[in-house]
Amino acid sequence: MTTSAPGEQDSPSTTGEPPRINVGVLGARGRMGTEVVKAVNAADDLELVAMVEAGDWLFNVADAGAEVVVDFTRPDVVMDNIRFCIDNDIHCVVGTTGFDEAKLATVAEWLQPKPDLGVIIAPNFGIGAVLLMRFAQEAARFFPSVEVVELHHPNKVDAPSGTAVRTARLVAAARRAAGLPPAPDATTDSLPGARGADVEGVAVHAVRLSGLVAHQEVLMGAPGETLTLRHDSYDRASFMPGVLLAVREIRRHPGLTVGIEGLLGL
Amino acid sequence: MTTSAPGEQDSPSTTGEPPRINVGVLGARGRMGTEVVKAVNAADDLELVAMVEAGDWLFNVADAGAEVVVDFTRPDVVMDNIRFCIDNDIHCVVGTTGFDEAKLATVAEWLQPKPDLGVIIAPNFGIGAVLLMRFAQEAARFFPSVEVVELHHPNKVDAPSGTAVRTARLVAAARRAAGLPPAPDATTDSLPGARGADVEGVAVHAVRLSGLVAHQEVLMGAPGETLTLRHDSYDRASFMPGVLLAVREIRRHPGLTVGIEGLLGL
Amino acid sequence: MTTSAPGEQDSPSTTGEPPRINVGVLGARGRMGTEVVKAVNAADDLELVAMVEAGDWLFNVADAGAEVVVDFTRPDVVMDNIRFCIDNDIHCVVGTTGFDEAKLATVAEWLQPKPDLGVIIAPNFGIGAVLLMRFAQEAARFFPSVEVVELHHPNKVDAPSGTAVRTARLVAAARRAAGLPPAPDATTDSLPGARGADVEGVAVHAVRLSGLVAHQEVLMGAPGETLTLRHDSYDRASFMPGVLLAVREIRRHPGLTVGIEGLLGL
Amino acid sequence: MTTSAPGEQDSPSTTGEPPRINVGVLGARGRMGTEVVKAVNAADDLELVAMVEAGDWLFNVADAGAEVVVDFTRPDVVMDNIRFCIDNDIHCVVGTTGFDEAKLATVAEWLQPKPDLGVIIAPNFGIGAVLLMRFAQEAARFFPSVEVVELHHPNKVDAPSGTAVRTARLVAAARRAAGLPPAPDATTDSLPGARGADVEGVAVHAVRLSGLVAHQEVLMGAPGETLTLRHDSYDRASFMPGVLLAVREIRRHPGLTVGIEGLLGL
Repeated sequence: MTTSAPGEQDSPSTTGEPPRINVGVLGARGRMGTEVVKAVNAADDLELVAMVEAGDWLFNVADAGAEVVVDFTRPDVVMDNIRFCIDNDIHCVVGTTGFDEAKLATVAEWLQPKPDLGVIIAPNFGIGAVLLMRFAQEAARFFPSVEVVELHHPNKVDAPSGTAVRTARLVAAARRAAGLPPAPDATTDSLPGARGADVEGVAVHAVRLSGLVAHQEVLMGAPGETLTLRHDSYDRASFMPGVLLAVREIRRHPGLTVGIEGLLGL
Repeated sequence: MTTSAPGEQDSPSTTGEPPRINVGVLGARGRMGTEVVKAVNAADDLELVAMVEAGDWLFNVADAGAEVVVDFTRPDVVMDNIRFCIDNDIHCVVGTTGFDEAKLATVAEWLQPKPDLGVIIAPNFGIGAVLLMRFAQEAARFFPSVEVVELHHPNKVDAPSGTAVRTARLVAAARRAAGLPPAPDATTDSLPGARGADVEGVAVHAVRLSGLVAHQEVLMGAPGETLTLRHDSYDRASFMPGVLLAVREIRRHPGLTVGIEGLLGL
Repeated sequence: MTTSAPGEQDSPSTTGEPPRINVGVLGARGRMGTEVVKAVNAADDLELVAMVEAGDWLFNVADAGAEVVVDFTRPDVVMDNIRFCIDNDIHCVVGTTGFDEAKLATVAEWLQPKPDLGVIIAPNFGIGAVLLMRFAQEAARFFPSVEVVELHHPNKVDAPSGTAVRTARLVAAARRAAGLPPAPDATTDSLPGARGADVEGVAVHAVRLSGLVAHQEVLMGAPGETLTLRHDSYDRASFMPGVLLAVREIRRHPGLTVGIEGLLGL
Repeated sequence: MTTSAPGEQDSPSTTGEPPRINVGVLGARGRMGTEVVKAVNAADDLELVAMVEAGDWLFNVADAGAEVVVDFTRPDVVMDNIRFCIDNDIHCVVGTTGFDEAKLATVAEWLQPKPDLGVIIAPNFGIGAVLLMRFAQEAARFFPSVEVVELHHPNKVDAPSGTAVRTARLVAAARRAAGLPPAPDATTDSLPGARGADVEGVAVHAVRLSGLVAHQEVLMGAPGETLTLRHDSYDRASFMPGVLLAVREIRRHPGLTVGIEGLLGL
């Protein structure tokens, strides 16, 4: 690096710093989109090049040179958005809900002619929640006992939470795979509901409490010791590291990826 | 003690140290009695003067000059023991179970001719557990939400624990007294048992886990904050401070006292 | 409302429902004031009659018929506000900071000619935090060991928090009053700081963690058991129940009251 | 096994059940040895064939047909024990302390002529503790903040615990490997010790409390969420699953293995 043309001294190639990734945000004024915009703006290695809201032209995203699009829109428009991105060679990180097997298959098919392009669709971008599930699965076979306690604000309509049910199922599957017998429980005299909901043999308890946000504990026990994994989610900001991780990693994950677990390099 | 011979300068009255309390233990070789013997021996202000086991003469206790007796025996002998103590002007701290209203009334009647004598009968000598219940009651009216989670070893046959049910009832009563409406809960879609057992409007969850001993949490919530009271009981030693407190306080509490709450000076 | 037409039988005086309390808010557009306005509006028994911001006429409050004023303004104007309220026979609930002994004495003096009027000045309107301190004090003498762990967001500049230091001091005082010896601690080989800060003999540990808001635990231990009191504060809304309690209770607490402890009826 | 005498149809090879592993215990009357004896006796797939205490002949172990020996003895005799086992083709699971690099190298050298034989030497057989460390390492790079809180009985002489220091170091290494900056901390006004001990940039807090046994928490935080991993160890029994795992797995791990992490199949 002994010679340097005038004006080149700040360029990435000279400093060794990788070039920024150009990001477009669809649904930029929604609750999640607003957080994404803030997070991308705060990241040194990302450049926000387009914010698109319902009614805006999608072409803006392509014109602005977006390499990756983040989509937190609505189930009824997200497929069109993905189609557009694929047609325009833009990677796509999708947090919009409502995907079933058929829709996933359609996206995978669209991607076939573009072997370098990636679409990541995730029901939960919270890295902490994903890690909790992963660790609970790994630890499950070492503990005869396991129960799940989830705690949420009182406006939640479902009990247990979807995440708690999913966690219990993953843990139950790990126990079955390890050939564990049912967790010991001598209860013979119980008030209805005291021992929680039974999700494939794992007791799940749902606490609803004013003041709380979203919290989950997996308690595992063996003679003489317990291991407790707890995740506390306080606000939407907690999903942003997972979104940014997906934005940064998507070029290394061509094709369709469901969930961010595979991006964590665990 | 108006006159004092030479050499008496180490006596309690001279040094200002109070005289020791002479203590007899009934059921001294049982699981709880063994702990009581150890605890009395370890206390500077108490003197273990008699250990009585099934088959031993109760007179030993009187002959040894016991001022207070601690009884952890069996429901079928405890009434005789109490009668003997009252007849011999010995205060009585009772942890034996099986007292109903009729038995309590009988003890109270026996005590009537002896206005200076005390009998303390307590279902739970754990100071931490008693404090937890007390604080939960006091705090209850300030929080729209309250739930109880108790966690025990998997050999426990009842769910929820008796202490958790009693705690929930005390909290429910405090809420009623304060005119609180039911705790907010938007749950419309629930697996059976997920929301716990309903004890007078308070949700109680029972976790059973290998490795645990006996634990209880009261969770209270209001918009923006939660208050959690947790008691962990690891072994029988935890009951000893309550027993010793009763031994020390009983002379200031003549008559029949049920539970140690009143001794805590709260 | 000097005349009353037929059909007005739903009026408070007829149904036995107490009349609403007219409330004015000073500093109504500040962070805390905004919350107060929302909380008063949401309370059936309170009527928001005046919102005053810097630059507005204080007379509005009197003209609007406020019976109680809530002041979350600034140290440099709060004394004038209190003076005005007292002159106009308006009760005053003050959350503004910066009161020293001299200022408190001045307020007390102003109140002397008005034996029915109340001023409540509180450094912390969080009922949960106040209860935690109270319970820790009450429980302290029953446990040989006690430590405080406070956990906050990483932008906090002081460690430990003021509340944790105050809690530790109250607990230390309760221990001294009970004649407790220092907490047992066999540590001979320690890294600097491992055992926390020493606040009058009570170890206080300060955790700083991204994601957290404001949390405090008091851990108390005796052989075989521990009692843990934990307060989690998630947002400013948590102070509103304490503010509303003060608004409702102030007419029963004439004179100067410092802190809301005395209003809790514990 | 083409021929089979009458009456042999219950033999393991016929039923498909694997043969039991013959186990010898060295230091069988020590605190840990006693637990090992109980655990082996309780395991259907293990057969206790020899219990050796100081002063007994080691030959008993070989004569009894032990395939695996468990050694919880003393640093001054453990090397002789291992040498004896290797010479007699017996696998060796060692929980005795005091191994340095030189001793480990010696054991490895002894094993060279016996490629099928295994020796497992572990400082900690607690599976929960090992899992906690592993998960903390894996999760560390996803969270800007991490601190460790360990809580122990007050008779412990070192602070922080060795496990907490080891955990902090592993986490610090994972953070360095991921290129994480120091955890955010705006503290400018601190009491000495409030922010804990600094272990390679990770704050570690040591709580000492009567009633506690051995507990450890790793708290990790990112904007809007926290992940907490907690291990509670209540008694020596908690080490037995790790010991039994080593006994069962050692034949599949020839050579020298240090720590049980590698046996967990994570």
